[in-house]
Amino acid sequence: MELTAIVIGLSLVEYAVFSMLCGRARRRCGVVAPATSGDPTFERYFRVQQNSLEQLIIFIPAMFLFAHYLSVPVGAGLGLVFILGRALFARGYYRDAPKRALGFGLSLLSNLVLLLGGLIGALIAYF
Amino acid sequence: MELTAIVIGLSLVEYAVFSMLCGRARRRCGVVAPATSGDPTFERYFRVQQNSLEQLIIFIPAMFLFAHYLSVPVGAGLGLVFILGRALFARGYYRDAPKRALGFGLSLLSNLVLLLGGLIGALIAYF
Amino acid sequence: MELTAIVIGLSLVEYAVFSMLCGRARRRCGVVAPATSGDPTFERYFRVQQNSLEQLIIFIPAMFLFAHYLSVPVGAGLGLVFILGRALFARGYYRDAPKRALGFGLSLLSNLVLLLGGLIGALIAYF
Repeated sequence: MELTAIVIGLSLVEYAVFSMLCGRARRRCGVVAPATSGDPTFERYFRVQQNSLEQLIIFIPAMFLFAHYLSVPVGAGLGLVFILGRALFARGYYRDAPKRALGFGLSLLSNLVLLLGGLIGALIAYF
Repeated sequence: MELTAIVIGLSLVEYAVFSMLCGRARRRCGVVAPATSGDPTFERYFRVQQNSLEQLIIFIPAMFLFAHYLSVPVGAGLGLVFILGRALFARGYYRDAPKRALGFGLSLLSNLVLLLGGLIGALIAYF
Repeated sequence: MELTAIVIGLSLVEYAVFSMLCGRARRRCGVVAPATSGDPTFERYFRVQQNSLEQLIIFIPAMFLFAHYLSVPVGAGLGLVFILGRALFARGYYRDAPKRALGFGLSLLSNLVLLLGGLIGALIAYF
């Protein structure tokens, strides 16, 4: 399971980078805590972090279940597609909100395959 | 632990549905990214997703700990109550914010029992 | 791994307390759902919960990986520093937003050490 752990760790390092970029955007755009809105540029950085969080709550357990019940290398490959998708999502969103679509779709699709695959694998193992 | 994995997987499928309904509400209500406010209907769909995320960060590890240290079938039963509570929460919230209360309470209660039970089980195993 | 489970459980109990304090602040400040802004005091309670969620998505897997691949007692010690940092963060933020800095830094630092340590440990085990 080392490969699974490495991919999960990498996805979290990427997310930590998004979080730090969001913190930097807060300072640069002059958005004073506790506010999280008021400047469209900051809001894009904030949404990259938040949306990644919304996806990671699925990704981490799904990655683990897929690797455990179906296949470690296929799970790791899908995990890398997810990480790449998140990078494209962030890069696009930082430029302009509509440019987030490709990366969003790529990471969502790989995430859903991991989740449904992991769930089906667990169901097969149970019955 | 297959049963635990299945219940965790189902809770994430439910959350993925909430996320997709939120994405659809964004388009229907004309809330343009990166904004997450401005339309009360969208905000209810957004809060269903966000509040479920706020609960799942407890639910997933707590479910695992409860099943590992106390009981797989009791944990799975509590997990199904959590999933049912989330469905009632969403159904109520989509109609009118105050109608979220019953489902909120049901999922919160089962979540806290899972968390405290899992923690007590780990403490007993340690000492 | 009981020690790891206990520290993860404690971090989630702390987060559950932040969530309940946020719910209480919602009622006291008269912020009606689905709104999450409009009252600076409520917004500080809300951000304590949200920011803890943003950190826990890293903390829980990182704690597990660090303990599994490097050291259970060192991981548990860093986990306790994280929990303490979160308490200082909340206590400061509830009083005034700039007072959150020390606790924020302490929890972020311990979290990053757990994440990078866990990832390096997994890489060493793999190669």
